[in-house]
Amino acid sequence: MSASIAAHPDRLLPADPGTRSIARSLLALVEDLPILSPHGHVDARVLANNTPFPNPTELLISPDHYVTRLLHANGIGLSDLGVGPTDVDPRESWRIFCRNWPLYDGTASGYWLRSAFVNVFGIDDALIDDEHADEVYDRLQSVLEGPDFRPRQLFERFGLEVLATTDDPLDDLDAHACLAADPTFTGRVVPTFRPDAYVKFHGAGFAEKAQRLIDTAADGATGYEGYLRALENRRGYFIAHGAVSTDHGTLTARTLKLDAAEAGRLFEKGLRGEATPAEAEAFEANMTYQFARMAVEDGLVMTLHPGVHRNHSPETFARHGADTGHDIPFAMEYTRALQPLLADFGTAENFHLVLFTIDETVFSREIAPLAGFYPSVFIGAPWWFIDEPDAMLRFRSAITGTAGFSRSSGFIDDTRAFCSIPARHDASRRTEASFLARLVAEHRITEDRAAEIIVDLVDTAPRRAFKL
Amino acid sequence: MSASIAAHPDRLLPADPGTRSIARSLLALVEDLPILSPHGHVDARVLANNTPFPNPTELLISPDHYVTRLLHANGIGLSDLGVGPTDVDPRESWRIFCRNWPLYDGTASGYWLRSAFVNVFGIDDALIDDEHADEVYDRLQSVLEGPDFRPRQLFERFGLEVLATTDDPLDDLDAHACLAADPTFTGRVVPTFRPDAYVKFHGAGFAEKAQRLIDTAADGATGYEGYLRALENRRGYFIAHGAVSTDHGTLTARTLKLDAAEAGRLFEKGLRGEATPAEAEAFEANMTYQFARMAVEDGLVMTLHPGVHRNHSPETFARHGADTGHDIPFAMEYTRALQPLLADFGTAENFHLVLFTIDETVFSREIAPLAGFYPSVFIGAPWWFIDEPDAMLRFRSAITGTAGFSRSSGFIDDTRAFCSIPARHDASRRTEASFLARLVAEHRITEDRAAEIIVDLVDTAPRRAFKL
Amino acid sequence: MSASIAAHPDRLLPADPGTRSIARSLLALVEDLPILSPHGHVDARVLANNTPFPNPTELLISPDHYVTRLLHANGIGLSDLGVGPTDVDPRESWRIFCRNWPLYDGTASGYWLRSAFVNVFGIDDALIDDEHADEVYDRLQSVLEGPDFRPRQLFERFGLEVLATTDDPLDDLDAHACLAADPTFTGRVVPTFRPDAYVKFHGAGFAEKAQRLIDTAADGATGYEGYLRALENRRGYFIAHGAVSTDHGTLTARTLKLDAAEAGRLFEKGLRGEATPAEAEAFEANMTYQFARMAVEDGLVMTLHPGVHRNHSPETFARHGADTGHDIPFAMEYTRALQPLLADFGTAENFHLVLFTIDETVFSREIAPLAGFYPSVFIGAPWWFIDEPDAMLRFRSAITGTAGFSRSSGFIDDTRAFCSIPARHDASRRTEASFLARLVAEHRITEDRAAEIIVDLVDTAPRRAFKL
Repeated sequence: MSASIAAHPDRLLPADPGTRSIARSLLALVEDLPILSPHGHVDARVLANNTPFPNPTELLISPDHYVTRLLHANGIGLSDLGVGPTDVDPRESWRIFCRNWPLYDGTASGYWLRSAFVNVFGIDDALIDDEHADEVYDRLQSVLEGPDFRPRQLFERFGLEVLATTDDPLDDLDAHACLAADPTFTGRVVPTFRPDAYVKFHGAGFAEKAQRLIDTAADGATGYEGYLRALENRRGYFIAHGAVSTDHGTLTARTLKLDAAEAGRLFEKGLRGEATPAEAEAFEANMTYQFARMAVEDGLVMTLHPGVHRNHSPETFARHGADTGHDIPFAMEYTRALQPLLADFGTAENFHLVLFTIDETVFSREIAPLAGFYPSVFIGAPWWFIDEPDAMLRFRSAITGTAGFSRSSGFIDDTRAFCSIPARHDASRRTEASFLARLVAEHRITEDRAAEIIVDLVDTAPRRAFKL
Repeated sequence: MSASIAAHPDRLLPADPGTRSIARSLLALVEDLPILSPHGHVDARVLANNTPFPNPTELLISPDHYVTRLLHANGIGLSDLGVGPTDVDPRESWRIFCRNWPLYDGTASGYWLRSAFVNVFGIDDALIDDEHADEVYDRLQSVLEGPDFRPRQLFERFGLEVLATTDDPLDDLDAHACLAADPTFTGRVVPTFRPDAYVKFHGAGFAEKAQRLIDTAADGATGYEGYLRALENRRGYFIAHGAVSTDHGTLTARTLKLDAAEAGRLFEKGLRGEATPAEAEAFEANMTYQFARMAVEDGLVMTLHPGVHRNHSPETFARHGADTGHDIPFAMEYTRALQPLLADFGTAENFHLVLFTIDETVFSREIAPLAGFYPSVFIGAPWWFIDEPDAMLRFRSAITGTAGFSRSSGFIDDTRAFCSIPARHDASRRTEASFLARLVAEHRITEDRAAEIIVDLVDTAPRRAFKL
Repeated sequence: MSASIAAHPDRLLPADPGTRSIARSLLALVEDLPILSPHGHVDARVLANNTPFPNPTELLISPDHYVTRLLHANGIGLSDLGVGPTDVDPRESWRIFCRNWPLYDGTASGYWLRSAFVNVFGIDDALIDDEHADEVYDRLQSVLEGPDFRPRQLFERFGLEVLATTDDPLDDLDAHACLAADPTFTGRVVPTFRPDAYVKFHGAGFAEKAQRLIDTAADGATGYEGYLRALENRRGYFIAHGAVSTDHGTLTARTLKLDAAEAGRLFEKGLRGEATPAEAEAFEANMTYQFARMAVEDGLVMTLHPGVHRNHSPETFARHGADTGHDIPFAMEYTRALQPLLADFGTAENFHLVLFTIDETVFSREIAPLAGFYPSVFIGAPWWFIDEPDAMLRFRSAITGTAGFSRSSGFIDDTRAFCSIPARHDASRRTEASFLARLVAEHRITEDRAAEIIVDLVDTAPRRAFKL
């Protein structure tokens, strides 16, 4: 194999030789620590069943909207990549991907894919081109069929200690139970309670879902009261299955405390399909408040991921479904939006609220100041489009002067791309080492403290923020 | 001549020696490539007539609001600089400029001016001071009167291959035709269709202009229908004269699809001077949608430049006119604003929409995600106040993790300052080399790929985005 | 003493050896210049009375909400830190602080505190821990009781030339008069007119304060007319006591010119406690306009500090009072908000308006363009949460391409933490040297000019902007 940049020991480290040398020493302290993944989208059944991954395309390309969107932007139809209903040959999609591999240079996805090829599959990334597409496909296919590359074997090889999934409130969590009960599987796979579909009046099938939730889990209570009871009960069920957190992909960060009568009135309008957009937003804001109240009561960590315009292209959504690359961020506001919630729960004992953003402007302006005061508020790692080295450095630069190193959540990979997990955590660790090395080189922290801090950021911070 | 920083071979390159060395190699690949200028404000008649530039002040100072505004901020009256109606002696304005030359240190304008002095005119920039003002004025005057510094001679010497002008929809484009027909002129000077004055109800002379447009070019149709027809016809006229794009300086990025009856009703109110600000904005948003529809039909590239409060100082506007240094940016939103347009045309074949912004926050948050999905969307180069080295590096840092290198427009100089064109493109090339060199030094891309990418960014990207 | 990073001669300077060497030379030019502090919150009585500081906790911890908030975020109750009504033993608060000292690594507060320990008090910062807390407390206590560490002695030792306080419009300014009259005190301590409490209808005790203002200083005039007259008179009183500026902590940057009748109507509603939030905001916007008008008339520099949600946690406010760490910034807009004010006064002779922001996004987008045109507008130094090295470098990077080096206010420390003043100015000077050194290393300015510029930034700029 040629010397790939994906295997270079100094990849992502700063160019200045003195700073790089410090970064290398810091990285060495955390490079081999176990991976904690407290928020992500891998399906627990993949691990429970441990069935081999079907083929390179369905493992690496089709389900990864980070990957398919950039091909789409360059003129490739999503159907040709196996996205949505299509009968395209996975090998043909693979050829398209290989032919266009240079598009990924400089991107986060390119880094993860290159690392997976080189460091997970032992494939020279110089072979990712039109000429060698079939050869690589066959080699990967053969590897995937072998015993060493099945999900549980990779889980172990990746050094995963904890992996959180993201689950529907009514999920039976059988896969999690199965893994927990299996003495041959030593990892910890925990569910995450994600109630979005039961909160957004205008989401697909809202009324049916909410009614089913009440019918299933409200202990016989009805209406808004039953709805809250059912949510509380299902949180309890998740806790019993090992959950440590709930996740909320709200439109905005707005929070609102409605009295039960008003909330109930909106809820009934939502069920009947008669709520206005403003009413739907108010109800969602009220539920963000309610979920915080429940978190104070039951101790689940609450994570908030607002600020994304989902399914921006209606035509693409209609043809290929959701999560197909056109969820687009917009500007977010947290200071005033969260004030009602934080006024009541911001200093509540043992309440943890992890704030994520794709709008980088709020890191220095709003989130670091909030987390620098409220013991409940943690600064979520850069998420989605800003989960890449330069943005991660900007993130640390934006928050550290105000909040230091004690208030961040630790890295989360937030991914459904299983094979990218080690590369994502590796990139984060290298970036943390780079940032700290600069501070050491500038005599702003001592090298001894930097050594303690990087271990804290990689290992202790996620355990602390997510109560692992 | 003393060794000016404007002639230093490493100017703008990163300080770290290893990174600088890579940057030098990358720069060498593009330093001498022809200049493609697909968006700017040079008047085609200047080239058609090839009349000598009148004097240093009227070439370099008075018409350049980048230059005059900073003197104004430091207490110099615009009249004393030859802006607007004034009978000031150009030599006196020149003296004022020279006396205040240190104000430009660190600015983009300073870089361009210094480079023009040193690299275009062979004047040592150490002479730009109070003492040598007259001497420099006389030397420049003498140079400008000579045969080598007339517009066409500079055009050739600058290595300009394509220069786009910005033109009124009713312009006869005679200067463009004259240049195209002239066998002694080998450059390509293309018009750009800029209909702003025919869209903004509250702009000066709107009703008169719109009526004249309809009378001239609507094939006899009237009202809103005639207005659309006339715009389409004039676009065709521009295409016949070599145009590749249209430019839109809208207040916001808002788009709106109005039905013809509603749009017609607003249009009539606009003509009568009875439209409210909200109606004017709605009509402009509708026209942005309509221009996209026309672009899909006729293939002209569409460029959008929103987000500037024009003529912020009414007193200055009254005394000195428009484009006198007080157009001030404000925060922009693209994700939701463009959704109606992109919903209908975002995936249309051969539609190109180049999004410019002066609000840097949208690069990572909105524009890179949009351009990373929609094949129609290109990321416009940093424009106006952010067309300077640090901001250009922030731009690449903001977009590359999400969109890689394939989705940007390539550099545009957007200038009416003819002699600044080579320095502007030079600064851009040096900045691209600097950014790529850092990625190479951090083992994020290979040096071979960086070499391909920089040629693509400088040469291929503008040809691709602007269909040159 | 071990070699503390707080005493390292290269602290905060860039890591690249070539750039650092340039930065060292530039720093040497300004390191020992006198400190000009044209905006801050030290109480003039502390200097007038020159009473010893009571103890380490009441000097360094309890009153500094930068310090207490980060302990609070990590679970320490504010009462245990001596904030608000509490009978906690200062020594116990000190122990808590020492135990948690590592939390401050990387923060601005940590830099200032470490520098105070090492460079002001001669305490090795390696001793700030649980084990040595009492020993350090006793050493500090003993130092504070000695003759060399009383306020005036420190004032002199810090090299303070000018120190501005922030004062209530009805303050008698006796402490200032006393200092001015004292031949043994050679420093210049000037008051600043801060009328916020007399402008915000919903602030505590507004009606009573406004009425007292009118009764005291309106020359017998009443109502809104008397209110304006009284404010003008008190400004005159401040001028007579050496004031050079007024300070305005507005909610937003909005400005509005109301006619006297309408403003008077709002004022009466405000006095009666009947104004809506919208009316209160309109009145505040009108007063920002009126204060600019007064500034044009009397020559006081006007500084604007908008964009902070004060007392975000109502529970903390109720228990511990204001300025206890939960004032949280939010997004600001200046371009349109200031247009009415700048339309009328932007080019007025001798009017100075210094714009501060904690929302970094406005530096390149709004404030630099405004200050690059209007002779009245100065770019305020990064303030509060962004008064730290990385943010200061981002600030210079954001504004310099557009506005150069002539339009910024110079550093302000804005602090009530007296012992942090030298460290704050030191950090600023090091950051300016770092930024300029990079521009020199990149051949963007000459080293000679950088030497002139850094002296201008540190010494001349604040004298110019604040008319010192």
